[in-house]
Amino acid sequence: MMEHTHVSLAHGNGGRFMRELIDEIFVRHLANEWLDTRVDAARIVLEAGVDVLVTTDGFTVEPLEFPGGDIGSLAVHGTVNDLSVAGAVPRYLTVNAFIEEGLPIDQLDRLVASLGAAARAQEVAVVAGDTKVVGRGEGGGLYLTTTGIGTRDRSIHLGMSHIQPADRILVSGPLGDHGAAVMLAREQFGLRGDLKSDCAPVAGITRRLTQVPGLRFMRDPTRGGLASVMHEIVHGTGLAVRLFDDAIPVRDSVRSVCEMLGYDPLYLACEGRVVAVVAEQSADEALAALRGESDGAHAAIVGSVERDTPRVIVVTELGGERLLEELEDSPLPRIC
Amino acid sequence: MMEHTHVSLAHGNGGRFMRELIDEIFVRHLANEWLDTRVDAARIVLEAGVDVLVTTDGFTVEPLEFPGGDIGSLAVHGTVNDLSVAGAVPRYLTVNAFIEEGLPIDQLDRLVASLGAAARAQEVAVVAGDTKVVGRGEGGGLYLTTTGIGTRDRSIHLGMSHIQPADRILVSGPLGDHGAAVMLAREQFGLRGDLKSDCAPVAGITRRLTQVPGLRFMRDPTRGGLASVMHEIVHGTGLAVRLFDDAIPVRDSVRSVCEMLGYDPLYLACEGRVVAVVAEQSADEALAALRGESDGAHAAIVGSVERDTPRVIVVTELGGERLLEELEDSPLPRIC
Repeated sequence: MMEHTHVSLAHGNGGRFMRELIDEIFVRHLANEWLDTRVDAARIVLEAGVDVLVTTDGFTVEPLEFPGGDIGSLAVHGTVNDLSVAGAVPRYLTVNAFIEEGLPIDQLDRLVASLGAAARAQEVAVVAGDTKVVGRGEGGGLYLTTTGIGTRDRSIHLGMSHIQPADRILVSGPLGDHGAAVMLAREQFGLRGDLKSDCAPVAGITRRLTQVPGLRFMRDPTRGGLASVMHEIVHGTGLAVRLFDDAIPVRDSVRSVCEMLGYDPLYLACEGRVVAVVAEQSADEALAALRGESDGAHAAIVGSVERDTPRVIVVTELGGERLLEELEDSPLPRIC
Repeated sequence: MMEHTHVSLAHGNGGRFMRELIDEIFVRHLANEWLDTRVDAARIVLEAGVDVLVTTDGFTVEPLEFPGGDIGSLAVHGTVNDLSVAGAVPRYLTVNAFIEEGLPIDQLDRLVASLGAAARAQEVAVVAGDTKVVGRGEGGGLYLTTTGIGTRDRSIHLGMSHIQPADRILVSGPLGDHGAAVMLAREQFGLRGDLKSDCAPVAGITRRLTQVPGLRFMRDPTRGGLASVMHEIVHGTGLAVRLFDDAIPVRDSVRSVCEMLGYDPLYLACEGRVVAVVAEQSADEALAALRGESDGAHAAIVGSVERDTPRVIVVTELGGERLLEELEDSPLPRIC
């Protein structure tokens, strides 16, 4: 096994230590029939007659391990979920790691094991990877990048351009669990409670939703939360969005954390939720589909699209209206 | 245009500043028919009947701009070259950036422009990307990750497993230019001379070489240099490698820098060279093919593969022999 307890710059120089780090941690946890560290590029197989989709995401989170997940599982779910909400089946993944000098080898091992387990659970093969070691004080312990390749049936047509006035907006579950859990883990208030990240694959949910006629668009509300997805829709369609505050599922524990820290849960990141836009007449069917999934028990219809001045309106519990602003300054620590 | 002079954490929070950073820098320089920032995953088109190859690489270099290149062009060439040496034609690229708070917007703009120009020159479309902003002191200015997807004719069969005893080893040009240029730029010795990185695409060279019957294997000698490629061959084949010191092309200026700093040029990174292994009887044809390319004027046959104890032997100019060790400790600053 590795003769070091912490990652050193020598683990990044292309020599024996790097080979050992890659073999004994990355290859050991990520091995599959496609992964061959001796090649410059991996050959993948994609069946004919399907659309091929590609997505990529970088991950930085502090702490690297948090209640409900860690940067390893996050780096898998974040990227495969982007494929899932595009209606695709995730197939292959590449993984890059920027490792900060001094990271404990044990911790790196745990994080890569978690990444490998998350990929296997989704039947996604890690086909290529790369590690770089950066100097002490030049990284946040570990930054990961994953790129995902998926295939999509050609009969699936989703996208913002399909959104129409009167469409309904649904969410698959309570919002902000990931953001609140990471903030709490970060700030070390001493209070943890049972708050856990929602970090999870959404493939089950998106597979169900794509069977609903009238499905227009899906997105996972990660960085910037539901509010930012709503603003993307407003920017992309030129339409208005109206949300109903009392319909939006937010756990009491998340609400408490937000009140304590002064955040709006609508801006908090989720890492295992789906926002869906469906035709008005399909809303109930979509809701039933969501609730049929184990992660969708708290799914809800939270708003609608309207032909109006492009903006995001929230109808408060008392029937008043407030504008939900686009995130500008940085009210949130980075959590995804 | 951007209302900031430096990147701030607010450029990473998923809101308006992030959208502006992405639109006004990344999209502006990287735009192509495939890139759509409004989608979670990009659809790409791959013709039927070809092999699909995937590779990925992370980039960190200090300084971010150096004689002959910068991290932007490096991030394109590093990844498309991995596809080229695998015998593939690079087609699509994804780009991730970890940007350190405080990076001047002007510099980011130059670096992304350079990345875009390098990709266009290679007819590679950037189809997806992602940016994350990390706190001051948690990054090296800019870390990039690129993932490349290429296609390869099914008649091309290359790989370490094809290497046989008596095969010849060729290099496409002088070694260590990139490593030496970056070290000089880093150390600020005051002496620069005309030393420039060799950072460049190798597609022209690899296209020529793949037409040579008897081509077994190609690799770009990046991190760890020629020495590390030789050790990979030794590990992968169980054969020995014999190099001839006086046949290995190294510029006088690189040799001087190495003598001054105490480095062996055989370990220095190149970012625009190819190492090729060919059948003995094809060596002259391969050399002629290399010299027919503008970047191959100084190509040379530098050694051979032998059935012997697995190790790398260098025959010195005086006819003696020395063992070329695998890189262990870190004798080199990180330069790729």
